[in-house]
Amino acid sequence: MAQEDFHYKSEFRVRFGETDLQGVVFNANYLLYTDTTQLDYFRHIGVPYDEVRQQGHDIYLVDTHIQFFAPARFDEVIESFTRISEFGNSSLKMVFEMYEKDSSCHLATCLSTYVIVTEETGKPTRAPAYLRAAVRDFEGDLSIEAE
Amino acid sequence: MAQEDFHYKSEFRVRFGETDLQGVVFNANYLLYTDTTQLDYFRHIGVPYDEVRQQGHDIYLVDTHIQFFAPARFDEVIESFTRISEFGNSSLKMVFEMYEKDSSCHLATCLSTYVIVTEETGKPTRAPAYLRAAVRDFEGDLSIEAE
Amino acid sequence: MAQEDFHYKSEFRVRFGETDLQGVVFNANYLLYTDTTQLDYFRHIGVPYDEVRQQGHDIYLVDTHIQFFAPARFDEVIESFTRISEFGNSSLKMVFEMYEKDSSCHLATCLSTYVIVTEETGKPTRAPAYLRAAVRDFEGDLSIEAE
Amino acid sequence: MAQEDFHYKSEFRVRFGETDLQGVVFNANYLLYTDTTQLDYFRHIGVPYDEVRQQGHDIYLVDTHIQFFAPARFDEVIESFTRISEFGNSSLKMVFEMYEKDSSCHLATCLSTYVIVTEETGKPTRAPAYLRAAVRDFEGDLSIEAE
Repeated sequence: MAQEDFHYKSEFRVRFGETDLQGVVFNANYLLYTDTTQLDYFRHIGVPYDEVRQQGHDIYLVDTHIQFFAPARFDEVIESFTRISEFGNSSLKMVFEMYEKDSSCHLATCLSTYVIVTEETGKPTRAPAYLRAAVRDFEGDLSIEAE
Repeated sequence: MAQEDFHYKSEFRVRFGETDLQGVVFNANYLLYTDTTQLDYFRHIGVPYDEVRQQGHDIYLVDTHIQFFAPARFDEVIESFTRISEFGNSSLKMVFEMYEKDSSCHLATCLSTYVIVTEETGKPTRAPAYLRAAVRDFEGDLSIEAE
Repeated sequence: MAQEDFHYKSEFRVRFGETDLQGVVFNANYLLYTDTTQLDYFRHIGVPYDEVRQQGHDIYLVDTHIQFFAPARFDEVIESFTRISEFGNSSLKMVFEMYEKDSSCHLATCLSTYVIVTEETGKPTRAPAYLRAAVRDFEGDLSIEAE
Repeated sequence: MAQEDFHYKSEFRVRFGETDLQGVVFNANYLLYTDTTQLDYFRHIGVPYDEVRQQGHDIYLVDTHIQFFAPARFDEVIESFTRISEFGNSSLKMVFEMYEKDSSCHLATCLSTYVIVTEETGKPTRAPAYLRAAVRDFEGDLSIEAE
């Protein structure tokens, strides 16, 4: 996928505390980065996480696959692109691609699957209309069924 | 203070992910270590944190002072000693001393102040009897007022 | 895979600082857990990470796939089983299965691919003899070519 | 101290992964925040950390005192003000004040002492001229001795 295939990116600088003794970003922090990007994305399309919870829903990560291509280093700026690549009844998939900004070096790609649940029970539920509409408005090209 | 002045210690091994590019434990992780030690201590004296919450209370950290004497490194085992040094009406102070186990090298000392609150309101409240009793039984030498 | 298929497990207690506002372990920490388990495993089979580095090698995570089945909570003890499932020329795959100890609830499964590199260049290199031998001695059942 | 007494601030949004089961930012992350702010400050005054290391120096945190006034929550924007309050021969003190941006709620204050060392030996050394000059140019009002 190319950067042009994404309509959203988060941008952040690698913190000192995110590095490890290998001198690069510790691997678990890529999952922190995708998590942050995911919630940035939802805020951006008009569905901040707090509102999802207030509506009685929650979003659980159930599956993630990360490929590491090159290490990120302290003080580098990371562009973290994301898009929703699939939107099912009660689940959705997001692709993340991270690049070092100055060099456009491709750092990592991540594919994550999330399930929408009823907050109280933790059980999967059909994605609510407000979420469905926000994603359809933003991504446009997904075959999201109408309510 | 000497190690003998403590009746409790936690022991744990430094994780790779806790180091930073200086090759040593990242400074914020010492606060993770004292937090972990504090909750280990309360579990040990018979007051696990979950129970504190079930009783409608919570414990907030309000002040912490850490002195760093020597860096800890990956794979070292840390002995983290702690004791309650003061126990007031709605607050308590804990001292933490951390040592590298093999060398007994003194890594850090921390003095933290906690406030006991009503969970629902977050307002300070007199330390409940079960907490007061557990601390008195374990530390013995604190001038904790009777209920 | 069943727990009996593993010859090694790490055991650790969920720290307060590893939880998030959902009240469960934050997803990125599962990668911290597998990383810790991986290095515990290598120490256990006689190849501590420091020695790998002293020998001029390093081990890079290049691909990880995590499935999340159930959330872990504060104070729970996690059993993190691992084994090397494939050992190639310059790469190896490890499977991780994490369980909540008391209930044997299956929390997560992770499959990670690592590459062995020359520390100075970061380029893949044939897994060194001492690593090959240690893995063969411990796992026994892998078709690891002799030197 | 008032916000006007500071010539520099970092600004960042609380990440989901920085919260804990109390629903607020985990205490150790305040130290991550001050660490990030400190390095942002040095970059801003023209002394990025990488350059300090390239010049053969390093900066160690030796003492930190944090007071927590109010909890920060997910998605809030934090303004983290800092200034150098003292600059000695081989050490310096920095004050940090953190506020929730929207409400100007005062979250925490931190006073940290750092020592400048020779990277190779880890021994304290007189603060180098380039660091001394950069701080004098930026803060202006410190009695930093001339070289």
